[in-house]
This record gives sequence, structure tokens and C-alpha cells, in this order.
Amino acid sequence: MKDWIIWENGFHIENISQNGNKFLVGNGYLGIRGTLPEYEKSEFPAINLAGIYDQVGVAWREPLNAPNGLYTYIEFNNKPYRLPGDLPLNHRMALDYRHGILYRDTVWDSGDGKIKVKSERFASLEEKHLIAMKYSICSDVDGEVRIHTGIDGDVWDINGPHYDELILSDSDQLIQAVGITHKNKDKVGVCEAYDASFSSQKQIITLGRKILRVLSFHAKAGVNYDFYKYISVYTSKDCLNYIDNAIELVKKAKEEGYETIIESHIAEWETKWSISEVIIDGDDSAMEALNYSIYHLHCIAPRHTDSLSIAARGLSGQMYKGAVFWDTEMFMLDFFLFTEPTVAKTLLKYRIDTLEGAKRKAQSYGYQGAFYAWESQEGGYDACSDYNVIDVFTKRPMRTYFKDKQIHISSAIVYGIMRYVNYTGNLDLLADGGIEVIIECARFYYDLLLKKVDKDRYELNDVIGPDEYHERVNNNAYTNRMAKYTFECAAHVIKMYRHMNKDLDDKLSAQYNMTVLLERFEDAALKLYIPQPEDTSKIIRQFDGYEQLEDVSLKELKGRLLDEKEYWGGAYGLASHTKIIKQADVVTMLNIFSGEYSDEILLKNWEYYEPRTEHGSSLSACMYAMLACKCNMPDKAYPLFIKSASTDLVQKGKQWAGLIYIGGTHPASSGGAYMTAVEGFAGICLEDGKLKAYPNLPRHWNSMIFKIIYRGDIYKIEVTKKLAKISNLGKYKA
Amino acid sequence: MKDWIIWENGFHIENISQNGNKFLVGNGYLGIRGTLPEYEKSEFPAINLAGIYDQVGVAWREPLNAPNGLYTYIEFNNKPYRLPGDLPLNHRMALDYRHGILYRDTVWDSGDGKIKVKSERFASLEEKHLIAMKYSICSDVDGEVRIHTGIDGDVWDINGPHYDELILSDSDQLIQAVGITHKNKDKVGVCEAYDASFSSQKQIITLGRKILRVLSFHAKAGVNYDFYKYISVYTSKDCLNYIDNAIELVKKAKEEGYETIIESHIAEWETKWSISEVIIDGDDSAMEALNYSIYHLHCIAPRHTDSLSIAARGLSGQMYKGAVFWDTEMFMLDFFLFTEPTVAKTLLKYRIDTLEGAKRKAQSYGYQGAFYAWESQEGGYDACSDYNVIDVFTKRPMRTYFKDKQIHISSAIVYGIMRYVNYTGNLDLLADGGIEVIIECARFYYDLLLKKVDKDRYELNDVIGPDEYHERVNNNAYTNRMAKYTFECAAHVIKMYRHMNKDLDDKLSAQYNMTVLLERFEDAALKLYIPQPEDTSKIIRQFDGYEQLEDVSLKELKGRLLDEKEYWGGAYGLASHTKIIKQADVVTMLNIFSGEYSDEILLKNWEYYEPRTEHGSSLSACMYAMLACKCNMPDKAYPLFIKSASTDLVQKGKQWAGLIYIGGTHPASSGGAYMTAVEGFAGICLEDGKLKAYPNLPRHWNSMIFKIIYRGDIYKIEVTKKLAKISNLGKYKA
Repeated sequence: MKDWIIWENGFHIENISQNGNKFLVGNGYLGIRGTLPEYEKSEFPAINLAGIYDQVGVAWREPLNAPNGLYTYIEFNNKPYRLPGDLPLNHRMALDYRHGILYRDTVWDSGDGKIKVKSERFASLEEKHLIAMKYSICSDVDGEVRIHTGIDGDVWDINGPHYDELILSDSDQLIQAVGITHKNKDKVGVCEAYDASFSSQKQIITLGRKILRVLSFHAKAGVNYDFYKYISVYTSKDCLNYIDNAIELVKKAKEEGYETIIESHIAEWETKWSISEVIIDGDDSAMEALNYSIYHLHCIAPRHTDSLSIAARGLSGQMYKGAVFWDTEMFMLDFFLFTEPTVAKTLLKYRIDTLEGAKRKAQSYGYQGAFYAWESQEGGYDACSDYNVIDVFTKRPMRTYFKDKQIHISSAIVYGIMRYVNYTGNLDLLADGGIEVIIECARFYYDLLLKKVDKDRYELNDVIGPDEYHERVNNNAYTNRMAKYTFECAAHVIKMYRHMNKDLDDKLSAQYNMTVLLERFEDAALKLYIPQPEDTSKIIRQFDGYEQLEDVSLKELKGRLLDEKEYWGGAYGLASHTKIIKQADVVTMLNIFSGEYSDEILLKNWEYYEPRTEHGSSLSACMYAMLACKCNMPDKAYPLFIKSASTDLVQKGKQWAGLIYIGGTHPASSGGAYMTAVEGFAGICLEDGKLKAYPNLPRHWNSMIFKIIYRGDIYKIEVTKKLAKISNLGKYKA
Repeated sequence: MKDWIIWENGFHIENISQNGNKFLVGNGYLGIRGTLPEYEKSEFPAINLAGIYDQVGVAWREPLNAPNGLYTYIEFNNKPYRLPGDLPLNHRMALDYRHGILYRDTVWDSGDGKIKVKSERFASLEEKHLIAMKYSICSDVDGEVRIHTGIDGDVWDINGPHYDELILSDSDQLIQAVGITHKNKDKVGVCEAYDASFSSQKQIITLGRKILRVLSFHAKAGVNYDFYKYISVYTSKDCLNYIDNAIELVKKAKEEGYETIIESHIAEWETKWSISEVIIDGDDSAMEALNYSIYHLHCIAPRHTDSLSIAARGLSGQMYKGAVFWDTEMFMLDFFLFTEPTVAKTLLKYRIDTLEGAKRKAQSYGYQGAFYAWESQEGGYDACSDYNVIDVFTKRPMRTYFKDKQIHISSAIVYGIMRYVNYTGNLDLLADGGIEVIIECARFYYDLLLKKVDKDRYELNDVIGPDEYHERVNNNAYTNRMAKYTFECAAHVIKMYRHMNKDLDDKLSAQYNMTVLLERFEDAALKLYIPQPEDTSKIIRQFDGYEQLEDVSLKELKGRLLDEKEYWGGAYGLASHTKIIKQADVVTMLNIFSGEYSDEILLKNWEYYEPRTEHGSSLSACMYAMLACKCNMPDKAYPLFIKSASTDLVQKGKQWAGLIYIGGTHPASSGGAYMTAVEGFAGICLEDGKLKAYPNLPRHWNSMIFKIIYRGDIYKIEVTKKLAKISNLGKYKA
């Protein structure tokens, strides 16, 4: 059994940016990068906020980092001791990922003796606006200590600075920073309270964009000097009296004291684990990686609101514009559906609430219905640019088509809503706007349908499927099947809504001609062309003409690179005219619709596409892993599962694209690891409305034990090799 | 009045490759580049043959250059005198473009005195397999002359060498070279006979790939020593006994003598000019440029066969693979229709005879009907590669879509056939396969039609229009209108064919269900979407979304170039995401269908598109010039006309693309210049089956006089400013 601690021993300057992600703590409202209190923006510290964005000029619009209320460093005998500049004797960081507490422990040599600094901090899971830190200093010789601690408003931004104005103030022993954003003049208020077990000389100064307490005292050898910081964050989007709330919160926290609030915080985490922990007997590393992945999903789950989604890099920073991708519905949703359906509902509510944005996007292209944003920010605004890649050879932006051609995004929303309906048994989301979303997505696809004048089949042309290396293709199997699924769902909800409630019936009937829509969607579902397995090979072509592309090995393709950073996709990318794909595409479709295909087809396509897949996206490995389980190949699934589960632990992913930081956490990988474990190895699925398990454990696993919530009840699942036991533990209370 | 001579005085080594084109002589069977007899392959001499091709390895397939029977140089007192190595005292070249005779006149200083060499040569317009040259040597001091003359089999090739075997022989005072091609083992036979007015010591030697006569004699000061060469070219594709024919021909020529054969040659040219000369009063330069353009069209007109077309670079070499483009039907056809309808018929017969190739091409893409080759060689084989451009930055081939997406090519064939029918009044081409071509082209477009499921209109998506800088666009106005035209023509011929003759009726009825086809084509013509002028601006969008592209000036665009050779088109080309276009596109459509649009629409679109056009193709200027005439702006047409007419005269066009020679003559420009003069300035058109003229002469032109053939009669057209006189001169005899 592992100890729920992730360590790093020694100070490794090259790991600063990765560790920001690996040691992240968060509570869904905010995420605090795993940086040290003394870091300034060159080391990428960030308290990244969920769902609030700003744009400066024509640069990318991105979420805000709050002024850093954790900022702290010390001097001993007038000499500062801080990383990364002052190299230590010893240093270690540790993340308790069962409770979301980050520890640091550093020893410097002052020449006369050793200075030890310890800190621990967390973003309260109980009180989402609160951060708390305990900081200790100890020297083995007497000396003069000066603590600099306060709020650093000079935050790291990728496309900032976002705070045109920064108001620094102090009153009543509290210090405050209020940032006012460039575009919308939103306010971000941070308040800090300080408490210590020892007395000191105190002074409050402002230094540029920092407001700092300077605390001086004479330290005796061997004595631990502990102090505490309580930091609150509220924005003007949270409430009108954001600053009063911030003040009140830190006062209350200081009154209650560090031990009390950390206890509630830990209790809240234990509640989460009581449902979501997955126990694996026989593979401690896998169990650690999986629960560490689950930890990250908890850190970013929006629980402070009923309508918000998760960004592709979670709350680890402004990377990928803090935007919501299909990752949420296709890769993260299941974890929340299975362990905390309220969060699943919140995620989907965000999509319902951004339907207008999706309709506006469709309209801007001349389409009807709802075309969801490829990179969704508030209101469903599509932050995706037409030029997402810089050509390494010319340094010119390349026209990419993610925003305009990746139409499968809308079907992912429908898929998410229907999955919520099926797993919870609740129709609340449908009644509360879900039906309109499904109908508008179906209208969108209907408007895109093309028919060859002399054939009675419908097509979807000029799209990008999940595999982004092949742009502007016709009849992508995944996209077409998901569009068909959307038509099927739309027809289904149109047929059922009348029985739900009278008001809804009235509302929808006023909006739509349901008879006509039903007829159209049923016709479309019937006639939309779905690429079928070829007669002998059983291979499903990813899109029209895929079979004619060059069949080259990944190795050979890599050998053709002129620049290791060159883009593989686009019109002339090295992969574009070959069969090499970026990520699971046909395999994603087969995974979702596995029941419609024979075992032979599933297997042959897995075997065909796997060696042709770069797995260049964190969305790829888990799809192959899950399908491998369905093909009774858990041992082939295993390394792909480990890859998904360890993504943020090993931090081997790309950190930089040219000068742009693209590292961060990978919640879709975490979600994919969870799905692989639960739906792949344990084989959880629904059959005729019943929860079933068809286990396929890796050879060296003895058993898996976990719980999932289904239709309001908690079930305990115990899986051993080929046997499964599902026990109903009674009602789940959110 | 100009003297019908194009001069170059002095020897300019940098002009060698251009002069090869500028001083070309030809007779439709072969074209002889305007090089000097002593040139070897580094100076690009070529006797380029029409309609016979070879391919070596995977290099581009290209037409053949015959072994060079003109090869000749002299020595005086054991020292050779030849260009470009031995710089002369004086040198000039002159092309009599009324009669297709090239003169050279060079004087060297031997130290003791001057050596003069003169030559004249022509490709007989009367006997297409015959070339003749007269060569004179004169020295102003006595000396020993040695003439080296014979056949140089070491020909210049772009993607050769094509002759795997070269058989050199001599017998009966004749020398011969037979080249056997690499792929098809075709034979190219060249025979040479020599005649002189003086006696000399004779020897025949072979030297590598050359077979040479070495003629030595003592030359007296001031005496002209003349000799003659008669060279015949026959290939195994012309006849079985190609070598016997070649021998017989040179024997006969030698017997008749140089003066006799040059007389017949000149007489033949005079016959051509008696119909085709255009007289312009008030602008000698324009008249010279125009008639020089007409000269080039005569040089490449296939008159030795009844089924052959013209390559994009005529007979000036292997550039552009010697392939036939839409240039022929859209830019050259009118000249032949108006002055020599038999040639027009031959050009179109080539398309009828290559219908099978066009059907095969369609089939290879999964389409029905006839998809004509973008770069057509024999049998309709499409020589166009999928990778036509090399990226200057990566040196990698770029995937281009000329071959697969430039579907408008098929409509050009239909356009040509119908134009032939309308101008000649003959239905022979229709009966002789033309109807099948039209129907198959219509079937091709019909198969490509897409219909939005919820709209009753048809579309053509993912095409390239005439403007090649914007790839893979939807609803290109030109393409859609030409497809509609094809449907209209197909419906028209289906309705008329039954009345033509019984055999034809039987043949077609056996092949097609004409009732169904008629219904389909009429439906398609009705419903195919044609982009309409916008309400206020009156601008017709070149394709869906054109209006959203960046509106940048040509100058600014050029300023963005990182490399002057970089490709402006493709997915990321500098022009691709702007409104800058390569060549006339909407304007070409408006020109063809001007009768369907108001004067205001014609004018506004001309004014909109002209500054946005690079005119980067020789097919562009004339379309703008003709539409300018229709908009009563002859003075705006004038510089564009001069640009078209002078293309080969000034030879400013690109000669090189990287290491590939792309220079040559530009028959589409020549044809465009003719069209601008006759259909633009003189305003010739058909109205209700009658020939009409609506003159719009440039301000400084007093009058134009020319003849055209219409429905079997010759008409003399005399145009003065705004008045036109059309006189019927009686029956035309081909």
C-alpha cells in the first residue's frame, strides 16, 4: 500500500515548470501551481481562477491568475534565503494527494549554521475561496530573521498583463489587493490575514505591484518560529461585495485557526475518497497513479457553482486559454457521473447555459442550430483562433481548421447529456434546457448534410475528426456516427418530451415544429452514410480516401522531420499524406459503439490503427486501452492505461511550443485512466438499464475494489480476475 | 508599316534561352528553337515533336526532341569559330515571321581577316517532315575551311535521356540517326542530305552521339561558299516505313533544290496570311506584336493529322511536359475557328479521341462520366502530378490539387465543341463523337453535384477555379456556371440528336437512357447554384467565403514574401488567405456570359477584381482586356492587350522555376491577343446566328482590317472607330 504522498527530493531547477503542475493543489474554484512561496513570475507561480477571463489587445483571451497571497521569503542576518537563486543543502517537496496539501522543506547553509524553512498549504475543499499556509523557520544558530510576506500582484501571465489597475491596501491588520481587468473591468480581490506564535517588529510596505509585511525578530537557535497565512479570493463575478466577503472570510479563518480549518478540509477530502477511491490489489504503482489522477479530477471539479466546466489543462494555468474542449464530456464526465453526479450536472449545465453561444457560432458560419465552441470560454465564446500553429520554417501563423471543421464537438455535448440521463436516471437536465441543446445540435448537423444528387445517402464533408493531422476530410467515420447518434437522440427526446411535463411541452411546441423535426431527424439517422468495415480486411476507413494514403511507419515518418518541432498536420505536414494519425479516431468510435460491431471487427481495427497512431494527444491512449479490454487484451491495455494515469505524475508531455508554455495538468488523461480502470479493466457498463461488470484485469492484478453511484444508489464493485461482485450500499446523499 | 522581321543585333549570351523561343520556327509537326546551328545541349537547341512522348523512370513524361540534323560549325585555318564560345565582331539574328525563316549573320575576326557565316533555315509549311537550311561562309583572306555538319543525337532533354539506343549510319551520301525511346521503343528517324556549290574533301565520322560530315576545302578571299542541308524527320508513330520515307523526302528535296522548296514554303505562308493577317492603322507596334502572335499560332497548328492538340508551350520544348491544358479550347481555339476551321476541328477531335482517357480519369476518382486531364498527353493520359510545387523553405514537394480539383477542364472541352458548332455551322464533330463527349462531361458534373438536404439547390464543392491560388473552395462562380453550361449543352444536344441521322440515333440510344439523362441535366441546369452579384456592391463572390478574406494590396502582399520564389498558393501561400488572385476568374465567367449581366455588373466586377489580380498566368490579361472592351474601356484594355501580344516578343516571363526550365512560347497569350483584337476591339460576336461587330478601338487606332471565316464564307471586316463594315467575300476553301 502506497502512502498517498508524491515526493521530490533535492532541488532540480529544470523541474520548476513541471512541478507547478505535478504538485498542484486546488478546489475547483482555484488551482495553485506547485511552486514555492518565494517564487516570482519567472518561475510561473499561479493561483488560477475558474471561469473568469480577460483579453489584452489581440492576444489570446485567457483565464485570470489571482494576485499571489502566498508570496513569502525570509532573510537571515540580512541575507535572503530563497529558491531558485540560493542553492540549498537539502530540499524536498511532498504532495499529500489524499488531502491536497503541499509540503516544502528546505535547509540552507548560512555559513554559521543551518536555516530550515518548512511550509504546508492547501486550497480549502470545504471553503472554496480560502487558501491557508503554515510556514516555519528554524535556525541552529541565533540570528536576525526578517520575513517578507504578503501579496504579489505582479502575476505570471501568458497573454497579460490583465490587471490594468492594481489597488493595494491594508487595514485592520489585513492586507488586500484588488486587480481590475483590462477588458471587462472585472475585479479580483485577494485578502490576507497573518497570525504567528511569536512576536516581531511589523511593517507594511508596497513595492511595485507587491504589498508586503516585513516582520523582524531575533531568532534563537533551535526554536521553531511558526506563522500562518489565511488568504481569500473573491471576484466581482462571484458577488457584488466581493471585498467584504474576502475580509470576513480571512478574519473568520484566523479566528478558527489553522488546525480547525485544515481538519474540515481533510474531512471533506475523506468524504470524496469514501466514494471515489479505487483499490487495486497487486499493483501499488498503478493504484498510486490512478488515485493521483483522481486527485487531480477532484482538484478541478466545480463545486462552488451549478454551471461551470473544466478547462483542458484544469486549473494549472492559462495554457490552452483555459478553454473547455470536448475533453470534458468525452474523457472526464464519466468519473463525475460515477462518483459525484452533481458535478457531472454542473459540467453539462455549463453547456446548456452556453447554447446561445453555440447558436451564434453556427450562425456566424451560416449554419442553423448549435455549433459548440472548439475552445469554449464563458458564454460559449469560441476562443479558438483560425491560426493555431506557427510554421517553424517561415515563423508565419498557419491557417488551421480546428474551430471551423471539428464539428464533432456538438455531438460530444449530446453524448454527455444522454450519458447523464442514462446513469442518473434523472430527466432534470433534459427538462432544464437539455432537450433544446440536443435538438439544436441535431439541427446543426442536419443543416450540414449533403446528398449526392443521384444517391440516396447523406454525407458530411470537409471536416476534421478526432485525428487532427488529417484536415478537411469527407465522411470521417467518427464524426458521421456521432452525428447519426445526435439525430437518434434528438428523435428520442422529441418522442419522449410530451410525457415529461405540460409546461415543457408548451415551451417546446411554441419553439419548434416537432413533427417536421422528428421526420427529418429520423430520415437523417437512417440515411447518413457510416463507413463500413471493408469486406475482407474488416478495416473501417477513417475517412474517404484514407486507404490511398502512404502507409509508412511512425519511425520512418519521424526520420523525415527536418525540425523536431515541425507540425505533423495541416496541408503539408509529414503525417497529412500518410496513414499515420495523431490519436484514436475510428477506435474512439468503436469504443463508444462497440455493441454494434463484431469482436473480429473491433480487434482487427485495433490492430490496424494502433501502430499507425502517434498518441500525440492525451486523449488517445485511454481509447485504445478501453477497446483493448473489450477485445480481451488487458495486457495490451495496461501500458496505455499506465501512460494515461501517469501523464501528470511523470510530466513527460510537451512543456513548450516554441515560446509558448503549453504544459499543465491533463485532466482528460486522468479521466481516461479512470474510465480505463472502471469501464475497461472492471468492465462496468449498462445493460437494459442494469449495472454490469465484465472484468478483464491485467494478468498481475488480483482485484479491484471501488464504488460507483448509479441511479441514486451507491454500489460497491469487487472484481477479481474474471469474477465481479456488485453490492448495493443504499442511497447516495450528495 | 513594319517589315515583318524580328531582329536581335549583337550577341547576348544571357538571351540564349529566351531567343530559343522568340526566334522559333515551326510547322505544327515540329518546332525548331531559335538557336544557332553550332549549339549543343547546354544552349537548349531542340527540334520538338508534336504528340510523341517518353518517360524515363519516375521523372515527368515529356515530348521528344528529334536528333538535331541542323548541327553545323566551321573551322578556319584549324581554329573553330562558333558561338557562344568564340565572341564575334558582329552578330545578328532575324526572324522573318511572315514566312517562318530564321536568319543568322555572324562575323569573326580570325586575326588575319574576317570570317563571315550566314545561315537561313525553315521548317517547311508545305512538307511538314522537312527542314531546310542554307549556310554560307566567306572570308576576306584565303584559308583552309573545315565544315563539321551532320546530326547531333546528344539532344537537350529536361527529363531524359529518352533515346536508349541511337543508331547512326550513312549510305548513298545521306546520313541518318534513329533514336529508340526508353519506354515504348518508339523510333525517331532523322535523315540528312547535303548539297554544295563547291567541291571539298569529304569524310563521314561518328563522334559519340553525333554523326558528322567533315568537309575541307581551300577558301579564296571574298568568295561565298554556300551549302544546303535537307533534313527530314519521321517517327514510327507516323508510319511503319518511317526511315524509307525520311530518305525519300530528303532525296526529293535535294533534287528540287533549296530555292524551289523555299518558294513553296513561302507560298504556303502567304496563303495563311491571306486570311489571318490583321491590319491595324495607327499602331505599327501593336500590329507587329499581334501578327507575331499569330505567327506563333501558325507555327504550332497541327495540319499533318486530323486529331491532335497544342501543348501549353507550343513546340518550343519539353516545358510543362508538352501537355495540353484548357488553354487550347479557351484561348487558342477562336483564332483557328476564325481563320482555319480545319485546325479547330483537329484540336477538338483530339478531345473526342481522348474521351476514354477522360472516363478513366473520372473512374479513378470514383466518378462517372468524363473528367478530362488537366495536363493531357496522348490518349488523354493526365501527366499532372499530385505534387507540382516544391516548397522553397523545406524543399519538399507540396501536395497540389490541380489534377483532382480543377474540374472546370471538362466544361472547356464542351465549350470548344459548341463554339465550333456555332461558328462553322457543321454538326460533323457532334455526330463524330462530340455528343458523347458532351454527355459524358455532363454526367461527370452531375455525379459531383451535392445538394443540401434541406435546400433545393445543387452545389459543387471542393474545387479549384481558374485562380489557382485558392484551393479547395466551394461554389466557384466560374466552375458552377461552366458546369451549368455543360448541362444546358447536354440537354440541347440530347434534344437535337434524333434529327441528325438514324445511325447516330441508334448508336446513342443503345448507350444511354436519353430520357432519364435529359431530365437530370435539365434539373441540374435549373438548380445548380450560381453565385449572384451582391445587392449593393454588385460584386460576384469568386467562391463561398471569398468576401471574408483579407483585402490587401498586391504591393503589400509582395512585401510579405520571405523568398521571391515562394509559392503564393496552396494552403499557406501568401495569397491564399487574401483576396489577391492569380488570374481572371469571375472576370472569365463574365466575359463568356456577358450577355447575362448588366453593364453595371460587368464594370463593377472588372473594377473590383482587376487590382486584386496578380496576372501571374498568361491566361489572365486577355480576359480582363476583352471584358474592358465590353465595358467600353478600350484604353484600359490596351495595355493588357499589349501584354498578351508581346509575351513571346519581350520574353519577360519566368524562364526558371528553381532548376527547372519553364520558359517557352505562350500560345494562350497569343490566342488571347488575337481574341482581344477581334472579339474585344473589333467586337466580333454572333447574334441570332449572324456575325456582328461592335467596335471599341483604342483611342489612337484609326482602323482594323481582317478576315474571318464564318459558316463556310470568308468575311472581310473593316472597323473604324465606332463603325464596322462586314463584307462577304464568298466561299472559303480549306
